[in-house]
Amino acid sequence: MIEDKNPKKTSIGELGEFGLIDYLTKNIKISHSSTIKGIGDDAAVLDFKNKKAVVSTDLLVEGVHFDLAYMPIKHLGYKAVMVNLSDVYAMNAEATHITVSIAISNRFPLEAVEELYKGIRLACEKYNIDLIGGDTTSSTKGMLISVTAFGEANQEDIVYRNGANAGDLLVVTGDIGGAYLGLQVLEREKQVFQVNPNMQPDLDMYSYIIERQLKPEARQDIPGLLKALDIKPTSMIDVSDGLSSEILHICKQSKVGCNLFEEKIPLDPQVISTCEEFKVDSTTMALSGGEDYELLFTIKQDDYPKIKANPNFTIIGHMTQESEGVHLITRANQKVEMVAKGWNPLKKEEE
Amino acid sequence: MIEDKNPKKTSIGELGEFGLIDYLTKNIKISHSSTIKGIGDDAAVLDFKNKKAVVSTDLLVEGVHFDLAYMPIKHLGYKAVMVNLSDVYAMNAEATHITVSIAISNRFPLEAVEELYKGIRLACEKYNIDLIGGDTTSSTKGMLISVTAFGEANQEDIVYRNGANAGDLLVVTGDIGGAYLGLQVLEREKQVFQVNPNMQPDLDMYSYIIERQLKPEARQDIPGLLKALDIKPTSMIDVSDGLSSEILHICKQSKVGCNLFEEKIPLDPQVISTCEEFKVDSTTMALSGGEDYELLFTIKQDDYPKIKANPNFTIIGHMTQESEGVHLITRANQKVEMVAKGWNPLKKEEE
Repeated sequence: MIEDKNPKKTSIGELGEFGLIDYLTKNIKISHSSTIKGIGDDAAVLDFKNKKAVVSTDLLVEGVHFDLAYMPIKHLGYKAVMVNLSDVYAMNAEATHITVSIAISNRFPLEAVEELYKGIRLACEKYNIDLIGGDTTSSTKGMLISVTAFGEANQEDIVYRNGANAGDLLVVTGDIGGAYLGLQVLEREKQVFQVNPNMQPDLDMYSYIIERQLKPEARQDIPGLLKALDIKPTSMIDVSDGLSSEILHICKQSKVGCNLFEEKIPLDPQVISTCEEFKVDSTTMALSGGEDYELLFTIKQDDYPKIKANPNFTIIGHMTQESEGVHLITRANQKVEMVAKGWNPLKKEEE
Repeated sequence: MIEDKNPKKTSIGELGEFGLIDYLTKNIKISHSSTIKGIGDDAAVLDFKNKKAVVSTDLLVEGVHFDLAYMPIKHLGYKAVMVNLSDVYAMNAEATHITVSIAISNRFPLEAVEELYKGIRLACEKYNIDLIGGDTTSSTKGMLISVTAFGEANQEDIVYRNGANAGDLLVVTGDIGGAYLGLQVLEREKQVFQVNPNMQPDLDMYSYIIERQLKPEARQDIPGLLKALDIKPTSMIDVSDGLSSEILHICKQSKVGCNLFEEKIPLDPQVISTCEEFKVDSTTMALSGGEDYELLFTIKQDDYPKIKANPNFTIIGHMTQESEGVHLITRANQKVEMVAKGWNPLKKEEE
């Protein structure tokens, strides 16, 4: 779809690494006073003063994490940033800076890389992030994006995965399972398109879940909202690999158990209707799907009045003693042990 | 050479991403008090107190930046760290933390990834670096390593590329051109091996230049040495792409010209003898070779007495007015305009 079959397009090789970097970074603006030096030297220089620096990094690989057959390349750039910012927000911190490294095969023209950077810059503008460095090189096959995100927070505000206690309430933002179902719709349409390229799919009825997959938004609003509500979660993680995987992370690191109530899991109506169409179980999708980039956290029971009826939050369970284990309580009131079924990128090739 | 043809080896896919991360990071020690939280949460948390944070990132791609036919995988891990630390030292800063992301195809067994991490950990131990995070995923082809390095410095000590003035002396550490010539030797041996696998090459006479290629050391000692000599360079950069490329970076950013004296360029005897054997010009190798990871910097003329006769440093030229241009003064006293011939990773595939 974006291979370099048009001879009018600009070859990246001609521009060279430094030419490409100059070209891609000429519109980069710096907005944080903590950015003493951004792009253009051996390293960037940051000044976090009395705040603590928070650092997170993620790698997205073509053919493993994304498929350019249906992922517009600008959205890919946007999503690569979101994936990382989400980790910073999950520390209850403010995201402030990113570095972006890309490897691209020469099958991509300059215009494709420019589209990628457009998405990256859009994300930076919208989320008030300074792009401060990176590396641009070629790959022998496909495209790969590595983003490292930085944030800042007062030490007393930072929330780890290991602070949950028995009795705490388990809370999730937004709704879950949409991104994975959006991917299923896109995969199906790709098959249809390969059989009949003239078919014009009508995807209106899937617009929400497709957007959840192609253009996710990290929950930048949550740390501020929690502060305004005078809540400091006891533990927090972002939902990138699926609800069950994230709950197990919190339980393992906090040395607690958990009861998750199936009926409480927040699902968008499009998730429910698409699950019916695909004949898959919506709870399984929410537990194992991943890529929702919502935040999952625990709070003290005393904080319950502060969040009840707040449309941003859903209480989906409570933490127990570690010896009680980690369970899903089904709608039929059955207690099922939860095991991680999150997405395993290292197994993908074998399956 | 390290493909997974031995069924006794451990498959990475079986371990899963979290299993692999646990396995690889169980021996990671933290030694900096600035590391509040390392591996194991959504993000790491760092405390730079009154110092400034310095950040650099690089991406190494199999088939572009390294060839596992002759690069031992442990050395690859070591080198990936060196490449990044070198950028931090080039800011006149102390390197303190790294994050490491790797993408690997399933052709690699667990033992290969473990070797890679052995090299990474060895580099961290030797250079006193805390490994604080990363991402581990699969690739559809080959191996890829993305490292982000962090350092700290007092604001007044940081040296940028843009501070050189006309009249300043141009200084380089160590010697230049060895890493690239080492690569030429290894490429030749690879060809020989492909023709006759029973051939046992005798590489003793190339030991220094091969080590420069396979196991480079970043100049951690230089910022401290400069401080001890009471020298603050006016500009500094690391020699990763070749001397001419680095000089042109300093000249462009500092808005100055330069006269580089061919006869002053420090060359190891092995570089000279191997150049003769390969019938290539040693100056061209030094100017265009790259990967030496020495430091190139400018100092005020007044500082000359502080460094003369110091075996770590060689004065190779001086800066001029921008209008005078950037020139190599040859042994025959000819003035040749310098143009960047550094390595261009984006052109490699086309050549």
